[in-house]
Amino acid sequence: MAHTRIAVIMAGGSGERFWPFSRLKTPKQLLKLASPDHTLIEQAVQRAHDLVDPASVYLATVPHLVGPLAEAVPEVPAENILAEPLKRNTAGCLVWLAANLLARDPDARAKVSIAVITADHVIRPAADFRRTVCAALDTAESTGGLVTIGIRPDRPETGFGYIEMGDNTLPNEHGITVRSVRQFREKPDLATATGYLESGQYLWNSGTFFWTLDGFLTELEAAAPNHYACVLAVADALARGATEAAEAAFAAIPSISIDYALMEKAQRVFVAEAAFEWDDVGSWDALDRSLSPDADSNVVQGDVIAIESRDNIVVSQVPGTVVTVVGIEGLVVAVTADAVLIVPKSRAQDVKKVVETLKSRSDPRL
Amino acid sequence: MAHTRIAVIMAGGSGERFWPFSRLKTPKQLLKLASPDHTLIEQAVQRAHDLVDPASVYLATVPHLVGPLAEAVPEVPAENILAEPLKRNTAGCLVWLAANLLARDPDARAKVSIAVITADHVIRPAADFRRTVCAALDTAESTGGLVTIGIRPDRPETGFGYIEMGDNTLPNEHGITVRSVRQFREKPDLATATGYLESGQYLWNSGTFFWTLDGFLTELEAAAPNHYACVLAVADALARGATEAAEAAFAAIPSISIDYALMEKAQRVFVAEAAFEWDDVGSWDALDRSLSPDADSNVVQGDVIAIESRDNIVVSQVPGTVVTVVGIEGLVVAVTADAVLIVPKSRAQDVKKVVETLKSRSDPRL
Repeated sequence: MAHTRIAVIMAGGSGERFWPFSRLKTPKQLLKLASPDHTLIEQAVQRAHDLVDPASVYLATVPHLVGPLAEAVPEVPAENILAEPLKRNTAGCLVWLAANLLARDPDARAKVSIAVITADHVIRPAADFRRTVCAALDTAESTGGLVTIGIRPDRPETGFGYIEMGDNTLPNEHGITVRSVRQFREKPDLATATGYLESGQYLWNSGTFFWTLDGFLTELEAAAPNHYACVLAVADALARGATEAAEAAFAAIPSISIDYALMEKAQRVFVAEAAFEWDDVGSWDALDRSLSPDADSNVVQGDVIAIESRDNIVVSQVPGTVVTVVGIEGLVVAVTADAVLIVPKSRAQDVKKVVETLKSRSDPRL
Repeated sequence: MAHTRIAVIMAGGSGERFWPFSRLKTPKQLLKLASPDHTLIEQAVQRAHDLVDPASVYLATVPHLVGPLAEAVPEVPAENILAEPLKRNTAGCLVWLAANLLARDPDARAKVSIAVITADHVIRPAADFRRTVCAALDTAESTGGLVTIGIRPDRPETGFGYIEMGDNTLPNEHGITVRSVRQFREKPDLATATGYLESGQYLWNSGTFFWTLDGFLTELEAAAPNHYACVLAVADALARGATEAAEAAFAAIPSISIDYALMEKAQRVFVAEAAFEWDDVGSWDALDRSLSPDADSNVVQGDVIAIESRDNIVVSQVPGTVVTVVGIEGLVVAVTADAVLIVPKSRAQDVKKVVETLKSRSDPRL
């Protein structure tokens, strides 16, 4: 039987690393980080529309982002915006999704295949993304296994998990390399990452998942029986309209990642090698990669005057404010109506320290 | 005959070096650069009140600053705010002043002595300033000469003019050293400035002047006859209410400094050595000297979060905006409601380049 394909965009991230542009109610996926015209979530929904019927696009998020997301992408049906009542990591997100699908259609298990994709990555071109996803879904549907997309590394990045590919190659009609997975690997140190890069046998874990609902539940039952039981309990409660019971059942599972709960333990796991360009836009300094630097290697957005300055990222969201820099190098300068951030690009991750300080004083600029 | 003392505060400076805090209509003297509570002009008027009757305090400025100054220091009589119709440098400023005094009272020449003081310097303590000024005025009144205040250098500053002291010391009852002036010196190079510093015979030119109106006019007639004629012509026109004629007469003099037009050529010139602390607050980096750095050597004003940052000046005028810096060193960060400036302290003078850029595009943020 042919499967009904749905696309689920994971859009619950808090994106603190782009403060002050990102906020509690405006995380990274709601920012125009990769394009002056479109937010990351708009771009993700557009990609999903290339894959499935618009009525089959879902968002998985957290309660306080339902409103902002509904406003940002009104083309997504309101009932398809699913909010986990509590944070239970990516395993919880996918349990909540499966339970909702089962609650809405008791026959879903046999019918549905799912592309779980991300909102906070820069992906281009769209056609190559579509080819890769089609290969992943075809593989999931034909094998009943769990499929992820892996990114061919171009640097010994220590900030990502890696996937070690196995020997088994699966054919597909999209020109995509799909192989069995030997092992998932945690974020490595630099020496290990360099070895991974040189071996050619490791791909970055993109955090995307492709499976039939039946394949997912079958593997979940074996690998994570508590999570599997949770799916059934939540689906049952939701079908009865017993929201509180659903939330209580959901609260009972541990907060762990889907990699740890399922992927690392599952029997049939495959990886499709991305045919597209991918960037995680993980922190301010990543804008060097996703936006176009000018002749002085400055990335500039908004009303900016840069004099004798090189290799900076200077971005402003405030139309009436002129941001002027003279003689600076290697800095991130981000300006909003109520906040200014200045940090060296080499320390872009340390914006977390600002966010922590703001949290500690319950600052409204969070 | 005892003289009637008046104090004239020169307050026409444009202060572009403190952009974005300073603006065309809010130059340096209208900023709270040396105190969180008082503008420089408020502090200057307070010092003038220590010297003369409040009704005898005058401001010399330019037309577009009359309104802002009247608002900032309402304790100065409105009719005492004198605006030169055109920019004619400091010589023009003092010509316009003398002409106004003569137009208002034809007998002023024989009666008035004048302290011409500045609005854009940090001066403390007040009592020592008063002692020094009294010595300068006493000297001017007893000799009929031109007196300035000199600052004992504490560094080989190349940004100031210097005064070479002569051998003649004049007694006074205020415990102030008053000496004849051998020569005025232009801004020196570093080697020359170092020699000046080591010799002990040179003081910084503070740009203050103390004279009787008669002494001023007598020396001016000899040194700068065109300027002298201008005083008489403008006074005559103003006394007749012929404003346009006054402005036309004023427009005819060249735009030169009082040092060049008069002080360097005058016969009887003296210098009183300042008994007070003095700082010209010439650019953003000078705030290190006039405000108190914190334990990390940061000078901070406004809503600022500084993390692992040292030796910066981070100042904000915007109550609702949080300015956050992480891992930066040696920068000036200045934030207003419509502008942000970031420049290394070592290049603080280069804010002029920003102002020039703004001028070239007729930017409203000037």
